[in-house]
Amino acid sequence: MGRLVLLLLLAFLMPGLAIPVPPALKALSNLHLSTSFTSRPSVVMKYSIHYIEQKIDHFGFKNDKTFNQRYLIADQHWRKEGGSILFYTGNEGDIIWFCNNTGFMWDVAEELKAMLVFAEHRYYGQSLPFGADSFRDSRHLNFLTSEQALADFAELIKHLKRTIPGAENQPFIALGGSYGGMLAAWFRMKYPHIVVGALAASAPIWQFEDIVPCGVFMKIVTTDFKRSGPNCSESIQSSWDAINRLTRNGTGMDWLSEALHLCTPLKNAQDVQHLKDWISDTWVVCQYLNNPNLSDKKLLQNIFQALNVYYNYSGQARCLNMSETSTSSLGSLGWSYQACTEIVMPFCTNGIDDMFEPHPWDLKTFSDECFKQWGVKPRPSWITSMYGGKNISSHTNIIFSNGDLDPWSGGGVTKNITNTLVAIIIPEGAHHLDLRANNAFDPMTVLLARSLEVKYMKQWIRDFYASPRKKH
Amino acid sequence: MGRLVLLLLLAFLMPGLAIPVPPALKALSNLHLSTSFTSRPSVVMKYSIHYIEQKIDHFGFKNDKTFNQRYLIADQHWRKEGGSILFYTGNEGDIIWFCNNTGFMWDVAEELKAMLVFAEHRYYGQSLPFGADSFRDSRHLNFLTSEQALADFAELIKHLKRTIPGAENQPFIALGGSYGGMLAAWFRMKYPHIVVGALAASAPIWQFEDIVPCGVFMKIVTTDFKRSGPNCSESIQSSWDAINRLTRNGTGMDWLSEALHLCTPLKNAQDVQHLKDWISDTWVVCQYLNNPNLSDKKLLQNIFQALNVYYNYSGQARCLNMSETSTSSLGSLGWSYQACTEIVMPFCTNGIDDMFEPHPWDLKTFSDECFKQWGVKPRPSWITSMYGGKNISSHTNIIFSNGDLDPWSGGGVTKNITNTLVAIIIPEGAHHLDLRANNAFDPMTVLLARSLEVKYMKQWIRDFYASPRKKH
Repeated sequence: MGRLVLLLLLAFLMPGLAIPVPPALKALSNLHLSTSFTSRPSVVMKYSIHYIEQKIDHFGFKNDKTFNQRYLIADQHWRKEGGSILFYTGNEGDIIWFCNNTGFMWDVAEELKAMLVFAEHRYYGQSLPFGADSFRDSRHLNFLTSEQALADFAELIKHLKRTIPGAENQPFIALGGSYGGMLAAWFRMKYPHIVVGALAASAPIWQFEDIVPCGVFMKIVTTDFKRSGPNCSESIQSSWDAINRLTRNGTGMDWLSEALHLCTPLKNAQDVQHLKDWISDTWVVCQYLNNPNLSDKKLLQNIFQALNVYYNYSGQARCLNMSETSTSSLGSLGWSYQACTEIVMPFCTNGIDDMFEPHPWDLKTFSDECFKQWGVKPRPSWITSMYGGKNISSHTNIIFSNGDLDPWSGGGVTKNITNTLVAIIIPEGAHHLDLRANNAFDPMTVLLARSLEVKYMKQWIRDFYASPRKKH
Repeated sequence: MGRLVLLLLLAFLMPGLAIPVPPALKALSNLHLSTSFTSRPSVVMKYSIHYIEQKIDHFGFKNDKTFNQRYLIADQHWRKEGGSILFYTGNEGDIIWFCNNTGFMWDVAEELKAMLVFAEHRYYGQSLPFGADSFRDSRHLNFLTSEQALADFAELIKHLKRTIPGAENQPFIALGGSYGGMLAAWFRMKYPHIVVGALAASAPIWQFEDIVPCGVFMKIVTTDFKRSGPNCSESIQSSWDAINRLTRNGTGMDWLSEALHLCTPLKNAQDVQHLKDWISDTWVVCQYLNNPNLSDKKLLQNIFQALNVYYNYSGQARCLNMSETSTSSLGSLGWSYQACTEIVMPFCTNGIDDMFEPHPWDLKTFSDECFKQWGVKPRPSWITSMYGGKNISSHTNIIFSNGDLDPWSGGGVTKNITNTLVAIIIPEGAHHLDLRANNAFDPMTVLLARSLEVKYMKQWIRDFYASPRKKH
């Protein structure tokens, strides 16, 4: 259980933002979708690195400039006869990191006679449209959208079909986790002529305006904490007021800074808010937190133990650095921009259904902050216009998998929509655990999910080979 | 037959281009898809005019500017109980013109209890993103793409659902003819959550790179001429050399200028080429052209009679003005830009399968000319990446109708793809004749086509009401 909780919680850690988000919003608005857990692959991962020249702007003709998109290929198990091509729709980070963390694809390659392709998302890793200037301003960031990323994927697959002998007549399947899972699903919806199906793991495609309640994420977090031990969520709930009471004066702040071994002592109310946000983001283990009725000081000392397990796992750190988080492989700048434009996911807490201090979702403030940071305003309803919200039943061949512990499952598809738009629930599963490599500690539930996923993919491949195909 | 041929030929007339296209390309590269035939409606057309504020750039966040898109609404026959909304996906011209020329929608409104909506395409009619500056340069034209137009339609429908009581829970059906038919089909493919189906009339969605032979269009034109009378196409085929022989010297040019009553006499080889292009574009009636073995001069005098029937139908014009064509309601500037960017339709003739002088399709020259005119380069393969080319079988609920006389049918879908992606062929039908109002002279074939179209639309509406619907 401990390991699952760990995986689960890593899933909603916030990356270290280089551009500060105001504390009140930080905890709720920039949750990063991906985890930083590196699994040990059960096969040797050998891939080659490639680059394709992509238009910076697929949707306009004035800007004719190009950039190099990176992608990885592993073809040890690929067979030209009856094979397939598994295409990872890269999300917000270095593609090598996703390649290393998607052991599932490596594990199934032989069975599906599959070539593996991992495509890096523009503005992440090495795929920077304007090199070091890519994040300079809204002009340079203007081409960072999901639509442009999907068009990159489409052009890349076209290029692979044209240049790799044998690839043209093979079925491509999109796979991705988290935001990458959203991209995999959207790719199948918008480019069904290019991929025969998609495995969208832990893809919260409904975590958008008015589709699911903004509190669902933190509610699931709280439920998970309740499961993980008696009194855990209650301890956390009590801790906010304890912090508030203790930090009313400088002595209390000094005590708390020392009790938590903070690298930089708390000096003012803003620091305290930052601390609370940092703790909110970091809830990891509950074994030290089973009594909510302790004295304020005792409770906060226990909380230090909890934080320390997570941030100081080596035991070497002399103090806790609040600017450190676990997701440094992920592209925080790019994601912060995406969260401020298209990928506007409302989050809120009310302190009743969840163990956090109440934070309503405040689009106005959020929008103002985005404008201050990036010079752009979010369009919270655009994703639904573009990708259909809950009205997606006319699409086919998409698997939506979700771990029921994963707070992102609150915005995911967790029930079958049609017999080809299917949901797989992984009891006790964490954030796209199914995409990880097989592991001796895997619960039976995730093994079953993976084998069901393979079954669907095999069906798509069979359907592809059974149907007459056109060249265009 | 005469009327059908007239309709047919009006379908490939080129608009009067304000920015000259080099003669060699003119005849083949800028064929306008729409006709200028105004049908008499069988019902009174009463509509209200509206405007919606649209983002100039749906696909980027730097430019936050908006423009007013015009649309028309006619709701005389609309019923909130069990009704439907027919949505015309406007193409390259003033939307009032399409509204007046799509009598089919008016004729079926009562039967389908339908509201009619006609949405103007950005950069045409009054829907100019930058007002008078809209066509100034590639920077201003950068937002003239089919993707942006479809996004306008999606946002407009969302707006209608939000603001018109009763519209939210009704099925929307996309309809369009010619490029508008392409948009209707693409709209259903990309936004199936927004429209339940599409009627794509005479939509040459395959008239793109490497999908159909570039000569198919002119081959069908030639076949039609062969049908329309003995020796007609042979006369035309002979006329090119007759013109070439006669215009080797100034006397011959003078004779020909006078024989054809040209407003501006021919002075050089370039003028002669312009003349041949103009005639190629204008072939209309063949009754004066039934003997290809006349003397050069006699043949060309007959050709004057033929041209005169078409351009001087009132008998008032004293001479023929080669800069005049029939499609002045259409937005030539915008279409020329679209033909130079996304909507790159290769056309060619070889003089063997068709009655024209040989013109190979020359992408390089075409691209250079586009760059000279607009500062942009065409991306001939993009439309196929985006919309799937021949691989569209995973979509549903699209009717592709084509008249078999229509040269655009060569790039259209003329066979069923699946049982919900259906083709309707209208024997002796011209360019989207089925979208015209019912008319006493309609051949039985088009009446049958229209009733089949209504049958499919009713099925989509029934399916919509029979299925559980989501709010998003």
